[in-house]
Amino acid sequence: MKTTIGFIGLGNMGTPIAKNLLAAGYQLQVYNRTLAKIDELGTEGVTRCQSPAEAANSVPFVISMLSDDTVLRESVTGDGGILKTLQPNAVHISMSTISPDTAEELAALHEQAGNRYLASPVFGRPEAADARKLWICISGDEQTKADARPILDCLGQAVIDFGDKTAGANVVKIAGNFMIMASMEMMAEAYTLAEKNGLDRVQVSEFFGSTLFAAPIFQNYGKAIANKQYQPVGFKSKLGYKDARLAFKLSQTSEMPMPTVNTVHNRLLTAVAKGWGEADWVEGVSRGVSEDAGL
Amino acid sequence: MKTTIGFIGLGNMGTPIAKNLLAAGYQLQVYNRTLAKIDELGTEGVTRCQSPAEAANSVPFVISMLSDDTVLRESVTGDGGILKTLQPNAVHISMSTISPDTAEELAALHEQAGNRYLASPVFGRPEAADARKLWICISGDEQTKADARPILDCLGQAVIDFGDKTAGANVVKIAGNFMIMASMEMMAEAYTLAEKNGLDRVQVSEFFGSTLFAAPIFQNYGKAIANKQYQPVGFKSKLGYKDARLAFKLSQTSEMPMPTVNTVHNRLLTAVAKGWGEADWVEGVSRGVSEDAGL
Repeated sequence: MKTTIGFIGLGNMGTPIAKNLLAAGYQLQVYNRTLAKIDELGTEGVTRCQSPAEAANSVPFVISMLSDDTVLRESVTGDGGILKTLQPNAVHISMSTISPDTAEELAALHEQAGNRYLASPVFGRPEAADARKLWICISGDEQTKADARPILDCLGQAVIDFGDKTAGANVVKIAGNFMIMASMEMMAEAYTLAEKNGLDRVQVSEFFGSTLFAAPIFQNYGKAIANKQYQPVGFKSKLGYKDARLAFKLSQTSEMPMPTVNTVHNRLLTAVAKGWGEADWVEGVSRGVSEDAGL
Repeated sequence: MKTTIGFIGLGNMGTPIAKNLLAAGYQLQVYNRTLAKIDELGTEGVTRCQSPAEAANSVPFVISMLSDDTVLRESVTGDGGILKTLQPNAVHISMSTISPDTAEELAALHEQAGNRYLASPVFGRPEAADARKLWICISGDEQTKADARPILDCLGQAVIDFGDKTAGANVVKIAGNFMIMASMEMMAEAYTLAEKNGLDRVQVSEFFGSTLFAAPIFQNYGKAIANKQYQPVGFKSKLGYKDARLAFKLSQTSEMPMPTVNTVHNRLLTAVAKGWGEADWVEGVSRGVSEDAGL
């Protein structure tokens, strides 16, 4: 029988990740704020828990995949938090997209408690998580990375080691989500410019997506933007806005002027202000560009 | 013996294009402001001309590849311009990156003169022109596009037809160069953010260039930006600035708010103001981002 792992957070990303761990033969102690979500995992190998502390009890690894810094911090340090039960030397594999500051703060708390924290944010939408096609970014202590590796290898197409800084992988994740948002913004601007000049925005998108910009981001998001096709919702605008804020804050704390961050931050803030927080972030960006242009 | 073609403009792009026409068996009547550049083409099949008018005399096609709207307009309408000699029904294949307004103005003048204008801007650096790997964008009258097609097929890996608007292809070219500049800006911002946080910017660039952003722009320009390696100069910052101005102007005339255009326009304007006009546009963008960050 394989190791038992604690698992916290069954959102769009956490659920397929948990299913893949079960498929790989791991036993899971699962906590989710909405307990009914746990039923989706079935009963085989699953123990339902009432708190993060219960999920983290007596396991060598606990994985968290939560929506933001605040929820993660509460899950670690709160009354029912991971730190209440996590055993000595156990590893908290932290997959959420959070600020490097929070990662460093939590890593220090884990160290004080005699256990370990590993930054492991991922790239990929829910379909990619489901198909074990995630790119998993890690950084920090060598032994901790080596210990977590067999678990991470079950979940993605590659695990990339960004060195020994505790929060290095978080910086990469924020930089990447910034680049995705900036790409959506530039495509929406360019294709709407084409539309306003009487061109077929789908043809223009297909041209760039098959030549200079022949990459997944420009093909998949490009198709949605060109066709103004924003269903199904894969990643909400309000979460995109959260990531834009992380990038904005990191540019400030790093003393790194990033005019393009200002643009995408304002775009997602506007989307949320207009009431599109639950819409896909592609809609948040693309519809905003079109509305600004009077379309 | 194949057709004789007029050819105007032996810059970084024009020279390899002219060589490929000669290699395909065409005879060329060539004009270049600096006449000595014509010697680089050899003597076989080449007639040296003293003016655009002389190059355009008695040929069914004249190709122009010039640096900007002003030079092109002078080459068409000036005392020694193409319109002085171009025969009825002959086609001016206009490959320069220019504003749609200029394209429409020149197309109207050609029509009044009883001959034809074809917008044919290209994507690709000089190496791509040399290797016949250009992407050639065309738009306008169907018969004119069909007549020019055999010549264009000698010069690129694909000819893409963007419909019947006279200047449609010019809009696509401006949109594409905007997207390239915006990509350089976003990479420079993201990789410098990584650098300031103690990460290896080359590793970060290689990660994105081989995963989410696995496209030529992010691989080739990304490598130069990550390594701060700006030689050799393929496309000058002052020409990038010209293209940023074209995008800026087109956003105004199209009533199309484009915040990312504002950013790249300011970036290239700053590069020129700092005296980097002759440096590669990758340097103009990337060095500007680094200097703003105090690096």
